Amino acid sequence: MFTLKLGSSRLVPACRRRLSRAVSTGARPNFPCVDAHAARESRILRKISDTAPLKTGTSESGPEPAYARPNPSSYNVYHHKTPMSLAYGSELPSFEIAYETWGTLSPRKDNVILLHTGLSASSHAASTSLNASDGWWEKFIGPAKAIDTDKYFVICTNVLGGCYGSTGPSSIDPTTGHHYGTNFPILSVFDMVRAQFHLLDHLGIDKLYASIGCSMGGMQSLAAGWLHPKRVGKVASISGTARSSPSAVAMRYAQRSVLMADPNWNNGFYYDAVPPHAGMKLARQIATITYRSGPEWDSRFGRQLRPVVDTSIPRRPALCPDFAIETYLDHQGESFCLKYDANSLIYISKAMDLFDMTDDALRELRLKRGPSTDCEEPIPRKISHSKSHPPPTNPPPYLSSLAKGMSPLAETPVLILGVQSDILFTVEQQREAADALRMAGNHQVSYYELGGVWGHDTFLLDVLNVGGAIRGFLS
Amino acid sequence: MFTLKLGSSRLVPACRRRLSRAVSTGARPNFPCVDAHAARESRILRKISDTAPLKTGTSESGPEPAYARPNPSSYNVYHHKTPMSLAYGSELPSFEIAYETWGTLSPRKDNVILLHTGLSASSHAASTSLNASDGWWEKFIGPAKAIDTDKYFVICTNVLGGCYGSTGPSSIDPTTGHHYGTNFPILSVFDMVRAQFHLLDHLGIDKLYASIGCSMGGMQSLAAGWLHPKRVGKVASISGTARSSPSAVAMRYAQRSVLMADPNWNNGFYYDAVPPHAGMKLARQIATITYRSGPEWDSRFGRQLRPVVDTSIPRRPALCPDFAIETYLDHQGESFCLKYDANSLIYISKAMDLFDMTDDALRELRLKRGPSTDCEEPIPRKISHSKSHPPPTNPPPYLSSLAKGMSPLAETPVLILGVQSDILFTVEQQREAADALRMAGNHQVSYYELGGVWGHDTFLLDVLNVGGAIRGFLS
Repeated sequence: MFTLKLGSSRLVPACRRRLSRAVSTGARPNFPCVDAHAARESRILRKISDTAPLKTGTSESGPEPAYARPNPSSYNVYHHKTPMSLAYGSELPSFEIAYETWGTLSPRKDNVILLHTGLSASSHAASTSLNASDGWWEKFIGPAKAIDTDKYFVICTNVLGGCYGSTGPSSIDPTTGHHYGTNFPILSVFDMVRAQFHLLDHLGIDKLYASIGCSMGGMQSLAAGWLHPKRVGKVASISGTARSSPSAVAMRYAQRSVLMADPNWNNGFYYDAVPPHAGMKLARQIATITYRSGPEWDSRFGRQLRPVVDTSIPRRPALCPDFAIETYLDHQGESFCLKYDANSLIYISKAMDLFDMTDDALRELRLKRGPSTDCEEPIPRKISHSKSHPPPTNPPPYLSSLAKGMSPLAETPVLILGVQSDILFTVEQQREAADALRMAGNHQVSYYELGGVWGHDTFLLDVLNVGGAIRGFLS
Repeated sequence: MFTLKLGSSRLVPACRRRLSRAVSTGARPNFPCVDAHAARESRILRKISDTAPLKTGTSESGPEPAYARPNPSSYNVYHHKTPMSLAYGSELPSFEIAYETWGTLSPRKDNVILLHTGLSASSHAASTSLNASDGWWEKFIGPAKAIDTDKYFVICTNVLGGCYGSTGPSSIDPTTGHHYGTNFPILSVFDMVRAQFHLLDHLGIDKLYASIGCSMGGMQSLAAGWLHPKRVGKVASISGTARSSPSAVAMRYAQRSVLMADPNWNNGFYYDAVPPHAGMKLARQIATITYRSGPEWDSRFGRQLRPVVDTSIPRRPALCPDFAIETYLDHQGESFCLKYDANSLIYISKAMDLFDMTDDALRELRLKRGPSTDCEEPIPRKISHSKSHPPPTNPPPYLSSLAKGMSPLAETPVLILGVQSDILFTVEQQREAADALRMAGNHQVSYYELGGVWGHDTFLLDVLNVGGAIRGFLS
């Protein structure tokens, strides 16, 4: 048989030697990507033993990661000292909300923008005099920026359930003196927003010029307009949704499953021990896949391999990361796994899954709504039409229920902006929200779909288009 | 403030009681979805202690799951008793390939179809007299079916690296007497195909009427035509690819990471102990997300909740599965986690990641190719055109390299079939393969894109369209 040899045969003897050695001595291969978990655990344990003499047996004990030792001088905290009932029937005896502000509150308090965050963000949306480091939306907030702090007074909170200064599972339950852990009640996105309105009450702010949110913040933004139609002037939902899709639930479920299977999770009671860092890393790797897009990775990484450390050794494939996309995911997981509280991830991702503005779903919740302009009609007869995106002529039942559920937003100008490459909050979800609002009689729905390859993370990156749409909507 | 109460206030006192009880007694919540891992481990350990007296200290010991105790009377095994060198420079001292057949070999041995499987499938593609249970492609293979066993003699193997009778990491290394574990060499898809051609040689089959494969089998099918242009009459790649995309690598990497982080994985040496069942379950949950599609889950599950077991207790959200999509993923993971070998999953998914038919990538491999019809031109000047899908006029460099790499297939009729809702082997990947073949001068490229919501799994489900395309291509 005619044969064609490809590649360099020079490499073979060395390879054969390595294989034979492994077999003859019974040597077992190393897996640096797996050893990384044990090495991280050792570092955490060393930190515990270093700090143990200082902290014993109380709520102060344990190897608390950075998030549990925030610098309280870098943000403000609102203390709500009375119980708040929650949408799923439980209550919190009290709670705290961390917040930061930018710009100046006008004398009439009519220039307030409430900014809602995604799952894991802190209140630090942009740099302040108290904290000069860049915030997560640094390029969008400031003088003459899309959210112009020469005009607006911007408030951003860490959400209820979070771990950056607001009350969440890592907080101390005042009734027991111990960390809540998984005794923390299941939250709804509506609960997060209700906590924010308690803060607004405290600040004496009756009406928002606008409510703006990205990702889960988009859900909160819609919820804010729904809860308080008279107190919210405009609602912007950027890459959010009015009703989590089963595929988004699936992707968050995969993350929770991985995290909860980490023995260190210990049913959520790990605050006095080693946190589930390996589970967090693995969960973040999965999350990162949902935050970007295949087309971005095609252009950014393609099939590029990790850099060669020692060029004298021929490259051979390994079971640990080989491709640049793998080292990227590995790095994203590693850099996140001790930055955020595992239980906050579980509780907040669950709240996202549960978010559903259909009338059928809203009726299951214990929610109090503020007054609206008019007596509401369950199914408004006014139907708005848009040449570019008319509501469906024969909507499925869930869409009619969504229109009915969202009817309190019928009089509020709403911006719905989504991204075609987003696999987590798909454009179908954006169209659904816009359709429902229009079916509910809303004649002031601004609707944009962005292109580009950045997927869900577009809201963090596309200053020109996302910022432009917000600027136009606010003015 | 005017308030509107939604939902039933009747539920509240009971809920409050449950919360107070949990807090006052310090009771901690239960997580059945997490406890499932420990319960499974106990079951496995019981099985070990039951079987331990029978098996000690040798290759026969250990709590081998079902796959490690196949019924060898249900399939045939080809024993290759001499070493086979591998694409990445290692070699196997010997190997076995499990295979099954359907139909009758013609006297001229000119009616043979070699069928290639996806990652985790066995050789049992359809029922046989030796094994009456349904195979994984039962509806596609048989008299008068798409692959008509009245006409064709069909051979399907378990791939090299697998665990259903063919040599893989769970096999005994004849040079040590122990399971290979992760001393098993890294495989290429080309190695899997070369092992299959050794089987064909053994059976005295010089030429295939056609090579057909789905998913990873599509890669193998292209590789078969590439390795042996004269021995393969037609090539069908169903939901395969000529070059794994970074997003597919990312999704398989997430699965491997989860699996390898399971302490039971033990760097791949678990055959005498408890296998990494929890990691396998979590990996399969992630895989399942990539096998179907959001639109399917929308229509199949929507936001439907798990069935209520006790209707006297009001439903409250839980951190364990709530939604039907979650219980579906949980079930898929649970039913797979002891059916397949973890190391086989790791090695075979890695081989898929590494698959790349660009000329640049092929030159890195140690591959011997069989003879082709003519002396090949590195970049053929003939360009084929299809009205429905012309090759790009200004192809990117990787596509030119792919065309050059695939040029040995220029004279072979090739069927490329993909599915628009497939997120793992996207239609872009199908178009790329078809483009490259046409750029390489292939005038016999049949190209189909299917609609529907079944995603990657369409090849298992859509008998009408997938079967119809194959039937047409074969005749």
